[in-house]
Amino acid sequence: MNESTEAMRVALVQHAMGPVPEQNLATSLDAIAEAADHGAQLVILPELHVTEYFCKAQDPALFDLAEPLNGPTCSALAECARECRVVVVGSIFEHRAPGLAHNTAIVLDRDGQMAGYYRKMHIPDDPGYYEKYYFTPGDQGFEPIDTSLGRLGVLVCWDQWFPEAARLMALAGAELLIYPTAIAYDPNDPADEQSRQLDAWQIIQRAHAVANGIPVAACNRVGHEPDRTSGQYPAEFWGHSFVCGPQGELLAEASDGAEILYAEIDRSRSERIRRVWPYLRDRRTDAYQGLLSRYRD
Amino acid sequence: MNESTEAMRVALVQHAMGPVPEQNLATSLDAIAEAADHGAQLVILPELHVTEYFCKAQDPALFDLAEPLNGPTCSALAECARECRVVVVGSIFEHRAPGLAHNTAIVLDRDGQMAGYYRKMHIPDDPGYYEKYYFTPGDQGFEPIDTSLGRLGVLVCWDQWFPEAARLMALAGAELLIYPTAIAYDPNDPADEQSRQLDAWQIIQRAHAVANGIPVAACNRVGHEPDRTSGQYPAEFWGHSFVCGPQGELLAEASDGAEILYAEIDRSRSERIRRVWPYLRDRRTDAYQGLLSRYRD
Repeated sequence: MNESTEAMRVALVQHAMGPVPEQNLATSLDAIAEAADHGAQLVILPELHVTEYFCKAQDPALFDLAEPLNGPTCSALAECARECRVVVVGSIFEHRAPGLAHNTAIVLDRDGQMAGYYRKMHIPDDPGYYEKYYFTPGDQGFEPIDTSLGRLGVLVCWDQWFPEAARLMALAGAELLIYPTAIAYDPNDPADEQSRQLDAWQIIQRAHAVANGIPVAACNRVGHEPDRTSGQYPAEFWGHSFVCGPQGELLAEASDGAEILYAEIDRSRSERIRRVWPYLRDRRTDAYQGLLSRYRD
Repeated sequence: MNESTEAMRVALVQHAMGPVPEQNLATSLDAIAEAADHGAQLVILPELHVTEYFCKAQDPALFDLAEPLNGPTCSALAECARECRVVVVGSIFEHRAPGLAHNTAIVLDRDGQMAGYYRKMHIPDDPGYYEKYYFTPGDQGFEPIDTSLGRLGVLVCWDQWFPEAARLMALAGAELLIYPTAIAYDPNDPADEQSRQLDAWQIIQRAHAVANGIPVAACNRVGHEPDRTSGQYPAEFWGHSFVCGPQGELLAEASDGAEILYAEIDRSRSERIRRVWPYLRDRRTDAYQGLLSRYRD
């Protein structure tokens, strides 16, 4: 990374969102300022932090929530990043063109400039999470974003389940994987199933760190959000945001309540770890063609 | 899988190996019989279970340890599989042709027939693990093996660190991933580093279960093996063999001592889990071309 020091302090804003977007944005801005006051150099917000999670029903009116890439959320975050001298990873419902919207992460550098953006590539769709209705899959691939804190591999939520996405970011030089996310328990699931899902969610992301020898930061929402349309799909966002190092070792983990989670990342560890565990050296790129297939039948 | 029942009982033979190959093979055969007596239908042995781990030095004389695919180890395991009516996953140092050797997993069906074999594709090489000297990388790709217990995704040791290998097996219909392995602490590492390595080893393999919605079984060696050449590279094989289900949930985990580990795999869970977590549906096969590159620079 580009800083003279090898340590980087990151903050994950694990907050709950309510029905008023302006209030949610104000909460995000306050948290960025607080994190900066506590020495954070990089502040990560959860997925779609300006709104409640609105994909519980397919409603064309909800596209009114979308805003342009350089819209009001971006402007507010940029101004805040500049004032606080921190790099900010935010998340917006992006209106790209009439009838064309994305789930987009935006990265504002500490001078307030947009360092880059990433349009969510893998889009989920299941009862209460109708994302394929709202979000056109990203068409720009898996490209990390250069910032004053180094090259950030920013992905979004459902991407976290795909080792391919993490690997492609690492192969393009990402020094840290970042996942703004919105993942919740189904309140109808029994406790043991909820526990398996939370564990699986941490394991798969910690494994991206292991496989690629780079740290991972995942920032989730918390709180109960009712289903304001049918009442069918209330969600309990499970929190447990975390940061792990390049061996998948947990550096910090949040509870299931609202908090700002801090962690210190030692940037020099990736080089050391990759020398001992040189997976990039040994990948069988000659034998991976089948990864481009839907199924090998 | 092909059985009428949905439950499968697997046994992992987590044993130590000594300097006499005949004794090691006898130990393996006894363990298969014991596991069968305890109801196992599938018995998995560790990597290179007929010998001590010999890659501690580069010595041309050690190629004498290699044997043909259908050599004495294969014959003995086949006979044992037939007598015990179990499927056996073994591991040999394969002499394929003069000057051409592989690290090969062999699968014997319960009728004693060879169901198939897999030649280790990813080959490690670091101080005390000079595998690139001994083992030519496999040239047959990632092909699962059909048995009377279903389609087995057999991989070997270093493969376990590569999500690509697990994915390719799953895409070819593997119903269970199997890793015979030989992984050890470096006795010179401090306890916290040893702990991170063990955790990383379990996390990455449990994540293959998560990413692909199939169970995983990893069978390691145990015991102290001295370095009989230079004395430089003694190894403490860390055991902790385990079986996890398709959400990465641990079903059984061994200690660091010699034991036969048993687990019940519910074959019907993969279909159920994949319906709820449909990653195969959402893979961006149009955007994965970079996975065929060494590095994206």
